[in-house]
Amino acid sequence: MARTVEFFFDVGSPASYVAYRRLPAIAARTGATIDYQPFLLGGVFKATGNHSPAEIPAKGAWTSVDLARHAERHGVPFARNPFFPINTLHLMRGAAGLQDDPRFIAYLDAVFDAMWREPRNLGDPAEMPAVLARAGIDADAFTALIAADATKARLKATTEAAVARGAFGAPTFFVGDAMYFGQDRLDWVEEALAA
Amino acid sequence: MARTVEFFFDVGSPASYVAYRRLPAIAARTGATIDYQPFLLGGVFKATGNHSPAEIPAKGAWTSVDLARHAERHGVPFARNPFFPINTLHLMRGAAGLQDDPRFIAYLDAVFDAMWREPRNLGDPAEMPAVLARAGIDADAFTALIAADATKARLKATTEAAVARGAFGAPTFFVGDAMYFGQDRLDWVEEALAA
Repeated sequence: MARTVEFFFDVGSPASYVAYRRLPAIAARTGATIDYQPFLLGGVFKATGNHSPAEIPAKGAWTSVDLARHAERHGVPFARNPFFPINTLHLMRGAAGLQDDPRFIAYLDAVFDAMWREPRNLGDPAEMPAVLARAGIDADAFTALIAADATKARLKATTEAAVARGAFGAPTFFVGDAMYFGQDRLDWVEEALAA
Repeated sequence: MARTVEFFFDVGSPASYVAYRRLPAIAARTGATIDYQPFLLGGVFKATGNHSPAEIPAKGAWTSVDLARHAERHGVPFARNPFFPINTLHLMRGAAGLQDDPRFIAYLDAVFDAMWREPRNLGDPAEMPAVLARAGIDADAFTALIAADATKARLKATTEAAVARGAFGAPTFFVGDAMYFGQDRLDWVEEALAA
């Protein structure tokens, strides 16, 4: 029986980016479905009391080295974003608003690459039209989408649901009831999907 | 050329315990030497601003599940210690004081097992004589050893040296200049030792 991996992520999380790039091959190998669940990492941190590892300088330095090692090993092009931290509220509202749209993955591709491959300052609204255009999304329509109550409510609901199930950071995966935290647990996720 | 893995640990860290039990097989497979470096995790936290994951309830819950998964996979008998947290200052001073003693590994075996396999309340001084006896260590001699200035200074020096090299938690490994944090990075440590 083919299984599903629920993938909770925020585009501001470089580990989420690496996981996003690795997941399709894992799904292909296991015949699994990826259930993309955009949530707001800042909301998760606020709800759980957790913080970014970058707030502890030594931990932030290690996390960068470690993530670069994983990206290299798995062939994921990765660049640190010099404009970080970037508030991802609008970007994640966009993801929530597009979750049922055929352009959802194209949007995630464009935003993740702009954030962690090129990288661009997505905190600057002037950068957005060109990034959105890659996904065939009009900037004015996007502005309206992320301002919609339904969009805001969906992002909030996904974030709250993840916290209720035990999430405290990104990326977080569920295979059934089993939770896995971190891009470095994708081998465990793959085993669970193949089981 | 045979290499060395420097292993910085605190007996109060369950991940250090799992690493301690896994390292001998890794050393045997790679022909490497283990350089045991007892340090004080509380001192590392104080110096770096880092905290135990257990301070964030959701993160603590995940860390427990994740560590149990790793222990099971690698065949390491592991039990949560219901008496935790236990102040490890005296235990780690003992490790520092015995670092050049032929009973060093026997002491670590006894203390790690008492903490994470049996488990006992090593915060209770009445528990110590029986644990020390397994390593052939007299309780009064131990009391004198951990009170010695040279013992205290050695633990402090090891802790400070680890922090100076980038450590922020336990276990931390170095293979040459490359740092690895966490028992879940032992596969990377093994690759570095085999390279």
